[in-house]
Parts: sequence; C-alpha cells; structure tokens
Amino acid sequence: MPLLVMKFGGTSVADLDRIRNAAAKVRAEVARGYDVIVIVSAMSGKTNELVGWVNETSPLYDAREYDAVVSSGENVTAGLMALTLQEMDVPARSWQGWQVPIQTTSQHGAARFVDIPRANLDAKFAEGFKVAVIAGFQGVSPEGRITTLGRGGSDTTAVAFAAAFGAERCDIYTDVDGIYTTDPRITSKARKLDKISFEEMLELASLGAKVLQTRSVELAMRYKVRLRVLSSFDETDETSGTLVCDEDEIMESKVVSGVAYSREEAKLTLVTVEDRPGIAAAIFGPLADAGVNVDMIVQNISEKAQDSDKPVTDMTFSCPVDQVVRARKALEAARDAGQISYDTLQVDENAAKVSVVGIGMRSHAGVAARMFKALAADGVNIKVIATSEIKISVLIDRKYMELAVQALHDAFELDKAG
Amino acid sequence: MPLLVMKFGGTSVADLDRIRNAAAKVRAEVARGYDVIVIVSAMSGKTNELVGWVNETSPLYDAREYDAVVSSGENVTAGLMALTLQEMDVPARSWQGWQVPIQTTSQHGAARFVDIPRANLDAKFAEGFKVAVIAGFQGVSPEGRITTLGRGGSDTTAVAFAAAFGAERCDIYTDVDGIYTTDPRITSKARKLDKISFEEMLELASLGAKVLQTRSVELAMRYKVRLRVLSSFDETDETSGTLVCDEDEIMESKVVSGVAYSREEAKLTLVTVEDRPGIAAAIFGPLADAGVNVDMIVQNISEKAQDSDKPVTDMTFSCPVDQVVRARKALEAARDAGQISYDTLQVDENAAKVSVVGIGMRSHAGVAARMFKALAADGVNIKVIATSEIKISVLIDRKYMELAVQALHDAFELDKAG
Repeated sequence: MPLLVMKFGGTSVADLDRIRNAAAKVRAEVARGYDVIVIVSAMSGKTNELVGWVNETSPLYDAREYDAVVSSGENVTAGLMALTLQEMDVPARSWQGWQVPIQTTSQHGAARFVDIPRANLDAKFAEGFKVAVIAGFQGVSPEGRITTLGRGGSDTTAVAFAAAFGAERCDIYTDVDGIYTTDPRITSKARKLDKISFEEMLELASLGAKVLQTRSVELAMRYKVRLRVLSSFDETDETSGTLVCDEDEIMESKVVSGVAYSREEAKLTLVTVEDRPGIAAAIFGPLADAGVNVDMIVQNISEKAQDSDKPVTDMTFSCPVDQVVRARKALEAARDAGQISYDTLQVDENAAKVSVVGIGMRSHAGVAARMFKALAADGVNIKVIATSEIKISVLIDRKYMELAVQALHDAFELDKAG
Repeated sequence: MPLLVMKFGGTSVADLDRIRNAAAKVRAEVARGYDVIVIVSAMSGKTNELVGWVNETSPLYDAREYDAVVSSGENVTAGLMALTLQEMDVPARSWQGWQVPIQTTSQHGAARFVDIPRANLDAKFAEGFKVAVIAGFQGVSPEGRITTLGRGGSDTTAVAFAAAFGAERCDIYTDVDGIYTTDPRITSKARKLDKISFEEMLELASLGAKVLQTRSVELAMRYKVRLRVLSSFDETDETSGTLVCDEDEIMESKVVSGVAYSREEAKLTLVTVEDRPGIAAAIFGPLADAGVNVDMIVQNISEKAQDSDKPVTDMTFSCPVDQVVRARKALEAARDAGQISYDTLQVDENAAKVSVVGIGMRSHAGVAARMFKALAADGVNIKVIATSEIKISVLIDRKYMELAVQALHDAFELDKAG
C-alpha cells in the first residue's frame, strides 16, 4: 500500500472545526488509496501556555520536566484527530512518542532522532488501520524520559517518519499555499513555485523559514524525502502547493529561483587589525562564543601600518542588528585580554541583505554581473558582497531593500513561469 | 526511610500559586524525614475542558482515545509540581503512568489496577531523590495504551501507591478540613472527627463521598492503608484533618459516629404483586439492568388475593428521584413481557433518607429504639426502615430531613467529643 505522511501545524488544528477540516484532507488521501501517517502539533497557543507555566515555575528549569509538561499539547491533538477520523469512518488510532517508540537522544528540549522502529505501526496497518496519528515534536530518551525536539520539531518528526516508512511524499499543511519567488508583500509579481530543490529551499531561508524549518529540509535532503508545502485552509488536490524535492526532479531551467532578504542587518568593521595567521579565528571565535550569528565576512587587502612594519588590515562582517551590543562587548573583551588589537570598531546599523538563489547558477555565468547591473540601474550602492555556489548576497542600505528586491525579481524575470 | 503518600486534588493544584502551596506541604514532610510519593490531579477545570472536546468531537467516542486525551491534564501538573519542588531544593521528578509503569486492566475509562512495580521508584529513592510525583488517575494497559481509572481515580491511585510501597500514611489534601459528624450546613453543632473507621466512612458516603471516593476507601480498608483527609488551604500539622483507619486504632467508644442523609429519594411501591419464589429477582433484575440504583427494599407479609388463591404481597423500594422514570419503564416492560404482575405502581417522589452510622452499634443494643424515639418526639413519620450491622436508615418526608438530622445529632450527643 502506498504511504503518505501528512503534517498539520498549530494553526491547522487550532480548534475542533479546523481539526475536522484537516481530517477531511486525510480522509481524501485514504480514499485515493493511501495509508497515512498524520503528524500533529499542539492546538495553537497551547504550547505557549505550557511553556509560560514552566518558565513562571522555574526560570532555570529541569529540561526533563519541561519536556514532560510541554509535550502534552501534542498528545491532546493526536487523540482528538484520531477520534475525528473515526467519526468519519476512517480506522485510525493515536500514538504518543513512547508508544511508537520514537527513540531520541537525551538532549532534552533539543533531542535528535536515533531510530523510529516500524514494527508497531506496521502491525496496525497490517490489521487494516488506515491512519496512524502521531504526536509531533516528541520522543523518548534511552532513560525512558520524554524528550522534545526543539523548534520546528513537528516538521522534523514528519520528515523522519516519511524517511523511516519510505513514504511517497511528506505533505506539510500550513497557513500559506506554497513557496514564492519572493515575499508577495514586497512585490505583487511574486509567483508561487511549483517545485524547488532542497538546496534552494535551504538558501531561501528568509522566505521559507516561517513555512518550513531548516532542520526538516536538511533531513529531507539527506533522505531524499519529497516535501510538499500547501495550505490547510484552501481546497487542495495533488497539484497544490510547492514541491520541495531533489533537483533531478526539476525540469525548469531558470537560473535564479527566488529573491530572499533579511531586513535587520548590521555591518561592523574592525579598522586596522593586526594581520597575522590566526587573526580571523581570534576575532570570530569570541563572537561565536557570545552567540553572535556572523553572516558575511570580508577582509580587505593587507597593508603596512603607518608607524610600524607590521601588516594590518580592515575586517568587515555582518550580523543581525539586535546582536550588535553583544558583538561589541565580545570584541572589546578580546582586545582587553590581548587576544586581538584594532583601532576602532565602525558600526553601520542600517543595512539589509538581499540574495538571489538558484541551482541554475552553477552552469550559468554572468548572474552576478546581471545582479549588480540591475542594482546599479536603480542607484543601489553595494556595501558587501558574498557568494556561494547557488547564492549571491549583497549588503545594502536598508532603505533600498524593497526597491532592490523588486529590481532583481524583474531582472531575472521571476514573474514568468519556466 | 519512612514513606508518605500525599495526594492533591484539582482545586489544590488549580494554579501555580496553589501548586507552590502544596509543594511547601511536601517539603515540610521531607524535612520531617520522609520520602514522599505525591499524587496529583489535573489543574481544576482542565479535565472538563478535555472531556468537552472529546464529547464534541465524538459523542460515542473510542474510550482508548478518550483516555489518551484526558490523561494529559495530570501529566502537566506532575511536571509543574516536580519543577516547583526542585525550585525549593527538594530533589524530585515526575512520573507518568507508563513510566512507573502503573499496570491496569484494559477497561478504558474505568480501568483497575493490576500491579504497581516498585523497582523504578525504589531505584530513584536509593539515588537520593526524596519525592516522586505521580500523575494520578492513569495507567497503562497490557496493550500499551493509556488507561484512566474513572471518577475519583486520583484518590485510588494514592491508596494503591500507599499499599504497594508500605506507606506510613496516605494523606488526601482537599478543600475541606476533615470528616464531620454530619453536614455543618444542616447543624452548626457538627463536629470534625479525629478518627473514623473504614467501615463507618463507607457507610457515611453522603458525608464523605465528595471528599473521598468510595472506591479508594474500599481499597484502603482491604490493604489497611491509613488515610488522612485534610485541607490543602489551611496550615496543617501531624494532628490535622481526620484519620480514616482500622477500627482497632480507634479508642473512642461512641455508639454512633455520624448522621448521614440523602435528600432526593423516591419511594416506589408495587401493589399486589404475585408472591412466588423468584419474584424479587424478577423485579430487581430488570431495574439493575436499567441502571436504577435500588437502595432500601421492604416486602410486606403475604396475603391471599381477593379473587384467587394465589398469594400476593406489596413490594416497596427506594431509589434516587431522577431514576424514577427509568424504573417505571423497566417495570412496565417487565410486566408487558409477562415476567412480573402487579396492580399499580405507587410513587412518592418526596422522600429523603437519614441514617445513623457507628461501629459501636455492634455491641450496643437499643440504638434503633433511641433513633425512632428521637424522630417521634419531633413528629417525624417513618416510611421505611432498613438496617445493617453498623447503620440504621429511615426513609422520611423530605420536608423533615433537616429536622431529623438535627434531632439525631442531638440525641446521640455527636457534638461532644469521645
């Protein structure tokens, strides 16, 4: 029997009506001949309520108890979903993490999958059960304690089950109808993609992160699980949404698939840094330890200091604006400790990052030139450039961000299909 | 290490403040040198919310899914209680039913204990954990599904753990401060009892049922678990509340311990019933099948029917007023089916039951006479009388109920200790 995994997030199971709506989508797939594994989140708001109670009880909580409390929201939805399906005459039962059992590591609050044994579910499918409803986001540790997987855990649960059970596809039902070429709020020309590769999806994090957790896409890429993102609020059929899949499955030959952005970026420059082997590690080590997410890094060419023979350089990097204070403290502490030396730290808090992403770039030259030309035509000055195999990013003044996204969306003709 | 079981009901853990208050009581017992097993209910209102969702989803629900959903409330409280104790520097952890594991039968919604293995908890106590917090009301079936124990399940869980672990005592914290000689709302002379025997507690159901589930008292009696009922809202010490214990432990020699009542009773009389062997079974079998809780039964002496030689009798019984319709239907159906015959069914829906209860009755004659005299002195007419070894009950007009309770409380001097 072919098997599908269907995942419903918190807003898709927010109340009994929405659970019924989701169950109807499951029933439709059973009618098409599938066995289905349904992964459910907690009803929206429930997990926050539980997390609030834990934080109020114990600010430095025991993560094992946190997991025991917080996982209960998914258990409720799983039972209600199974009951709803039974009401629709679909043979279904619920499974909590320990019943499968979903075996994870002992890292409470951020556990990782160890194994998802098939025996228990396979036996139920063999008995004629058509649907297994799984409480997402949870598992059980080797010590027999309940674990949770951390943010986006239910998406990851869905992908892990799809991999373990060789599912034909893993459908992620959410509150948007797919992945777009860029944010439709920035340009109405934004177009829903029918397909996108795993690699592009990962690079388009800013467009997709609210839709699909990065970790679940990584897992899907590793196990070649075809992911489909679609809306739980619309009528849907087998062509709805966006398929996230291996690039071999994608026939379209667009050079660029999407334009991503990140609005709140800061550019920091350490002026006159002593240029010696290991200086990058001496700078970025303390930043990493301080939890600063350094993104783009540019090192200028080295030159001699004015009053010495020592080679010096300027080091520029970007990070989210709200991490600037932390970054400054970490750098000053490293300087005070004699680990690094610099004259001044220049901070520009008015930056934004715009990126074009596409697997086609690998075989097409001239993408960067076309990007820079489009930005120049609109008078957008580029502060920093960074490139990867399938992405080119530029740091620009924040006030030009929308303009830049629109210009690039036009330049690469993303409003046109194929 | 001596061990205590402490149980906190829904109102005692209704919010984080109350959970802290309950945890402080646990900490006090740990400070006195006890290891403690804490049994918690769901925060008040939570179970009703979950039950409401299940009923709305599926009126004829799958009881296995009902249990999976409804048990989640206790899991939340257990985790929060463990965290609260940890914040007070008391080493504690939570246990869900399947983690102990609390083994029950497969009767979902009304499961019964099969075994509570000690190994897992004993190992944790040996490691230095002082408190095991157990989610009450739940267990796990031989099939690995979550079960619930039905109404009052958390009290029963507490007694079962006290029996399994040989606890010195099982303290039931609730919203009243003990068991009274009668309902204080009916007479201000009602006095809190320091001790009461298991047998009396069972007979005083109308006074104690809201405090302590009958099933948990039965279990405590069978395993000789000393139960203490006390308030979670008052300051308490080792002398607070009422101890429910074996009669050997009770030195007081009162003949009567309490006056119980049941307000909404009906008296039904089947007039001119054919009196033959098996007639009682023919009448009360269909009533039991219809779920009618028949309480007192009186059969008048037999006489000959007017127009025949067949012996006939009148059969009187009592049941709760809200079951009269059901009782009437069951009796008429039995008559229509030819299983019984009677002339008329007389129904008096204005009855109430008043009982005096005391283990001292077994060795003291004249209790019934004293009771009837006290009622007669106040002009209360008795409709039906029923006696057991430690209880005498009378059915009277409902309007005299309060008067009768007050008269009997005075007659047996229950306002005086010892």
